[in-house]
Amino acid sequence: MEKLDISYLYKNAKSLKGKDVSVAGWVRSVRNSKTFGFIDLNDGTCFNGVQIIFDQNKIDNYDAVASLIAGSSIIVSGKLVLTPEAKQPFEIHAEKVTIVNQTDETYPLQKKQHSVEFLREIAYLRPRTRLFNAVFRIRSVASFAIHEYFQNNGYVYVNTPLITTTDCEGSDQMFKISALDFNNPPLTKNGKIDFSQDLFGKMSYITGSGQLHGEAFAQAFSKIYTFGPTFRTENSNTKTHSNEFWMIEPEIAFCDLDSLMDIEESMLKSVVSAVLEKCSVEIAYLDSFIAPGLKEKLTKLVKSNFVRIDHHDVIDILKQANVKWEFEPTYDGDIAKEHEKYITSYFDGPVFIKNWPKDIKAFYMKTNADNKTVAAVDLEVPGAGELMGGSQREEDYDKLIARCKAMKVDMDKIDWFINLRKFGSCVHSGFGMGFERLVMYLTGVDNIRDAIPFPRTPNTCDY
Amino acid sequence: MEKLDISYLYKNAKSLKGKDVSVAGWVRSVRNSKTFGFIDLNDGTCFNGVQIIFDQNKIDNYDAVASLIAGSSIIVSGKLVLTPEAKQPFEIHAEKVTIVNQTDETYPLQKKQHSVEFLREIAYLRPRTRLFNAVFRIRSVASFAIHEYFQNNGYVYVNTPLITTTDCEGSDQMFKISALDFNNPPLTKNGKIDFSQDLFGKMSYITGSGQLHGEAFAQAFSKIYTFGPTFRTENSNTKTHSNEFWMIEPEIAFCDLDSLMDIEESMLKSVVSAVLEKCSVEIAYLDSFIAPGLKEKLTKLVKSNFVRIDHHDVIDILKQANVKWEFEPTYDGDIAKEHEKYITSYFDGPVFIKNWPKDIKAFYMKTNADNKTVAAVDLEVPGAGELMGGSQREEDYDKLIARCKAMKVDMDKIDWFINLRKFGSCVHSGFGMGFERLVMYLTGVDNIRDAIPFPRTPNTCDY
Repeated sequence: MEKLDISYLYKNAKSLKGKDVSVAGWVRSVRNSKTFGFIDLNDGTCFNGVQIIFDQNKIDNYDAVASLIAGSSIIVSGKLVLTPEAKQPFEIHAEKVTIVNQTDETYPLQKKQHSVEFLREIAYLRPRTRLFNAVFRIRSVASFAIHEYFQNNGYVYVNTPLITTTDCEGSDQMFKISALDFNNPPLTKNGKIDFSQDLFGKMSYITGSGQLHGEAFAQAFSKIYTFGPTFRTENSNTKTHSNEFWMIEPEIAFCDLDSLMDIEESMLKSVVSAVLEKCSVEIAYLDSFIAPGLKEKLTKLVKSNFVRIDHHDVIDILKQANVKWEFEPTYDGDIAKEHEKYITSYFDGPVFIKNWPKDIKAFYMKTNADNKTVAAVDLEVPGAGELMGGSQREEDYDKLIARCKAMKVDMDKIDWFINLRKFGSCVHSGFGMGFERLVMYLTGVDNIRDAIPFPRTPNTCDY
Repeated sequence: MEKLDISYLYKNAKSLKGKDVSVAGWVRSVRNSKTFGFIDLNDGTCFNGVQIIFDQNKIDNYDAVASLIAGSSIIVSGKLVLTPEAKQPFEIHAEKVTIVNQTDETYPLQKKQHSVEFLREIAYLRPRTRLFNAVFRIRSVASFAIHEYFQNNGYVYVNTPLITTTDCEGSDQMFKISALDFNNPPLTKNGKIDFSQDLFGKMSYITGSGQLHGEAFAQAFSKIYTFGPTFRTENSNTKTHSNEFWMIEPEIAFCDLDSLMDIEESMLKSVVSAVLEKCSVEIAYLDSFIAPGLKEKLTKLVKSNFVRIDHHDVIDILKQANVKWEFEPTYDGDIAKEHEKYITSYFDGPVFIKNWPKDIKAFYMKTNADNKTVAAVDLEVPGAGELMGGSQREEDYDKLIARCKAMKVDMDKIDWFINLRKFGSCVHSGFGMGFERLVMYLTGVDNIRDAIPFPRTPNTCDY
């Protein structure tokens, strides 16, 4: 008999009523009362498992089945019975239970509740728990929703390079890569490692951003997006930092800051809607056990109009607030987490903060006519702080060079990027969204280590 | 007036008939005859551009427009006029042409035909050419079709780690990464670089495969896939090798080799169908100018039934063939490119070659009952050779350990992977598909450097 996914049973329970079906998966729990028992069986194709009823009179390995430990893999054949009175819409009355692989007491995921800290240490097993099953399915659904949004709106997906010699965020933040044998490396006359003999003939890095390469492709396709891993060497152990993370970086030609905000807003709403629709069971679980109010927060976001306000005006509001700040808000400074929190609560919704003081922002951002601010925009959302950061890009060749000089950017490494301003330049904009930050927002988990399958943080690179 | 994508005009030309529209893009060519002229304008939202007619009596910058060079960016407003008699379905009669940024004679992409070798040197500009515009749009559409196939079939997308200490393909093939300052690195007592003081506290790598991590997630979700970049240090300069490439690696629990082949076949047909449907213009162009017969090849694949044949029987066929082989086929050996070619042409279609001699395959593959072969399968397709490689995985704890010992696999580094065989193990299978190889197959380009936006090969890591 062909094995069916449990998700398929949920979708087709009514038409399978009374039919013989076969499922395979992992035991979550077993209860038994001498002559019959219940298995909560999960195969991961949906959040909920299926209840299996096994009966001493029907199966020939009753005792073995009754003593199964969580995590064991089994294959079950039996009749699908609708249970309109019960919590679950159907159950399976087993006619045969094949034990495939039994776990024993060394299995780390026993029935009790485990802390997320403990589960991080067994990252290869934690997707089997309800929490991570929900988080990583939402991560998958959100990934696809992002692709769907951009593809349905005519964007071209571009795989910008991971290995690179171009440096957008500063090479001191980038991991070096090498194919050299460090036990016996080639040396220069000065006794340093000779990276000119490395595979690429020079020092190379793994990327911190695909933006610069993305801009080159936007000048060919008008609308592009990237979605791939990025890396930072930051030696930081906060809840929001990770050395490996995924980013979405769209770039749009003939697009100014206002149009960019339109895109950010519509993209985010589209992704949140898709998750609410496709992961309602997971969201309900997280809402109940992990992040009370999650569903309401997400539902509200989809319906809200995002506020658009200048950085200067945000500082006004912060200064007028009757709050004792840890960091005093200033017109030429960044805004702190406490300010982000205040401002999203002040407006009771997502806020685009735009036109930032130019001295605290990157060299490639468009300088405004006031010559004091740049056309940059950060999206702040309630409960997560900054979710996206974008800007209109400096499209003028001379102005970009002046900005590079003023900020001591090594122009030799990005001459091709600067050249884009000579070869059909245009008003263009783009933004970056850290994908794990979105996953944290969507699931309510408050540590980035729990939003990515195998987190990489200082001194943590197991597996 | 709101700017419209040229792709939008193509889709809605009839309803826009006679209306004022505005488009923005890059000049492909300009022809003029004293009082009026034609611009071939492209914005990259679709393969074809739009013909702009500009008239001395209608625009006030006629001479400037008439002397524009390819690559210049402009914004055009004018009336959309249907042209049922012409090659293109419509054109725009310009009322205003705004020159945004003019290229000059330093622009490397002049009107003439450039060699792919030259274009590789200006990888940041080459997506503007027809060839690469077609290739990279097909790449994007194929990416999405892969996500669609797996998501619509209930798979969970998993981002396996890029930075890793686990080694699937052998760490001599993997790039090392480091956050150390190599100008002044910490040293051990023996004068070697002390990687225990590196960010992760040990030597770390960027991955060559997500398979092992994928298996862990398949034991939670039943059906998962990865789609991300992978890296190999191979110092090889062939047309099919690249040090950075993207891979799709599905893993499926409770799935044997036969079911795996079903999935591979259905996935590939689904992706090829999507490209034929969504990129018909691009395929027609490539068929005409790059790879004659491309469209027929792809159409035929969708309709074909893939042959399934044992490695042993393939060797029989090769030995009986009336061909002078460069490499003599052997029952215990790999098969060479010439053999792949022969066998796909022999069967006139895609061929799954299965049950390979175990000594030439990886440690994690399931040993068959004959104890001589493993349940591995390679998919060979006409015109591209090996497109996917997969296997049923060894799910038995003791057998896997025996195999690791026999093949001298460092088990300390993959103890968690081996543990999966104790904790609810089951028959499971997976495959890997090199995405660039698929792009080459779909587009007919014969060099991997032309199938990825910014190729990385020995001594080539510009940008």
